[in-house]
Amino acid sequence: MMGEAVPISSSAIRLDADALNAFMAEAFPHSVPGSRGHVVSVVPGHIQARLDPDVKALRPGGLISGPTQMGFADMAAYALVLAHIGPVAMAVTSALNYQFLRPCRPGPLFAEAHMLRLGKRLAVMDIRIWTDNAGRPVGQANVTYAIP
Amino acid sequence: MMGEAVPISSSAIRLDADALNAFMAEAFPHSVPGSRGHVVSVVPGHIQARLDPDVKALRPGGLISGPTQMGFADMAAYALVLAHIGPVAMAVTSALNYQFLRPCRPGPLFAEAHMLRLGKRLAVMDIRIWTDNAGRPVGQANVTYAIP
Amino acid sequence: MMGEAVPISSSAIRLDADALNAFMAEAFPHSVPGSRGHVVSVVPGHIQARLDPDVKALRPGGLISGPTQMGFADMAAYALVLAHIGPVAMAVTSALNYQFLRPCRPGPLFAEAHMLRLGKRLAVMDIRIWTDNAGRPVGQANVTYAIP
Amino acid sequence: MMGEAVPISSSAIRLDADALNAFMAEAFPHSVPGSRGHVVSVVPGHIQARLDPDVKALRPGGLISGPTQMGFADMAAYALVLAHIGPVAMAVTSALNYQFLRPCRPGPLFAEAHMLRLGKRLAVMDIRIWTDNAGRPVGQANVTYAIP
Repeated sequence: MMGEAVPISSSAIRLDADALNAFMAEAFPHSVPGSRGHVVSVVPGHIQARLDPDVKALRPGGLISGPTQMGFADMAAYALVLAHIGPVAMAVTSALNYQFLRPCRPGPLFAEAHMLRLGKRLAVMDIRIWTDNAGRPVGQANVTYAIP
Repeated sequence: MMGEAVPISSSAIRLDADALNAFMAEAFPHSVPGSRGHVVSVVPGHIQARLDPDVKALRPGGLISGPTQMGFADMAAYALVLAHIGPVAMAVTSALNYQFLRPCRPGPLFAEAHMLRLGKRLAVMDIRIWTDNAGRPVGQANVTYAIP
Repeated sequence: MMGEAVPISSSAIRLDADALNAFMAEAFPHSVPGSRGHVVSVVPGHIQARLDPDVKALRPGGLISGPTQMGFADMAAYALVLAHIGPVAMAVTSALNYQFLRPCRPGPLFAEAHMLRLGKRLAVMDIRIWTDNAGRPVGQANVTYAIP
Repeated sequence: MMGEAVPISSSAIRLDADALNAFMAEAFPHSVPGSRGHVVSVVPGHIQARLDPDVKALRPGGLISGPTQMGFADMAAYALVLAHIGPVAMAVTSALNYQFLRPCRPGPLFAEAHMLRLGKRLAVMDIRIWTDNAGRPVGQANVTYAIP
């Protein structure tokens, strides 16, 4: 109940999924699709993103590595901020807390990113990462971005 | 969508709200109602709690202090764990991350505590604290308990 | 090596231990000594504080409760910020992450608070709480304050 | 003072820097040197590591990206655990909290990893990442590993 209720009006969306993906492809010219992921949908206060990790993302045991999950959570948070404030490349992560909840098996990763608070100087977001079952996330992040 | 979907069956509830409140009153004989709060409802994977803070909980500006909010979040997490594992007093907090989202004005505080993962050794929970609007929480906590 | 090296010049200290304790006694008129603690020493980038918890601070097992430790860490962080920016009551905690490391046995608690970064809008601090052995802290906190 | 004082005897070191680097090269066969880093020195309770990031690690503004820093902190924590418990590939990150303190300019990154507590089931570590000045870290992490 808490997650989706941030009262951000629909007029608040400044970049849709296509615009966000185009912006990030330009902002990170050296990254490859399997390391960055892309935005799937955008609604006020919430985006969904997807990552199809490549083989470099594996850790011992054949699981998706922690840094891959954390990088994806950070990307989802960045996209959620930009969706609401527009194409401001210099928004920067101020803090990221990641809880590893379950083994992350290979396959597509999904991120559900919800805005907890969008202030003038800081945005705080809740990110859940899941693979086969949205109700059993593999990880949960709390991400704070500083807005220039 | 993520919060309520933890697949914990209803048979998993071992202590209801009354039993939890009785247990905590006995476990913390020196605490007073205005500093501890009480459990309002219990369903699989989720509890709601309420705190009516006394005047000692105020900080400069007439707001509810941070430690009051964090202590309440910790109590809600403790109650959520005990609701699922039974009256094990020695479950202990392993980590608590608290994000202060909005000014916390005087009045009753509510906590929504959701289980993210209940393992054999660790329980990880998401706690949202709110006052007048559940959709605009004043704080969000991620709490990990070690299970003995 | 990392902890003490924040290059804050000695001229940066605006409030010493006595001034900090007087300020906090006035800012929190309803709190009692056993729940708040006091500042012992102040040097650039670092303060030490002490708390003699009363019986209300105990949790099952006869240990010092988590909220008592977190509240003390928050107080130490508040004092460390004020020592450097002066008596600005409305500096507020933005985030507090606490790791419980070892059982916290009854007796005086000490806090070592180090400034990691003092910016114009945010201060980030490392706080270690210990009882009988400074080299074996009972808890470690990372605290962020927003500066008005 | 707090950082270096964890009383872990020198007999506790089970893998030195060379052994750790060989182990990780085998454990992460798909990673490249510029994304993983290597261990420089090992003493009881502490390791130092170094990363020479490649161009993929850059983010807008020409700075080293957040995921690069977090991945490096996670690697340093993994190496610090393995140095003390031996070559147990399945030690897994349980939680990682990262505070971004200062802009991270291109060039070699260094990590100072200190053990806060090494228990039977959980290891908690403090990691500082720096570039040109160890006293002014660009980031600070608190990392928890679950030990199988």
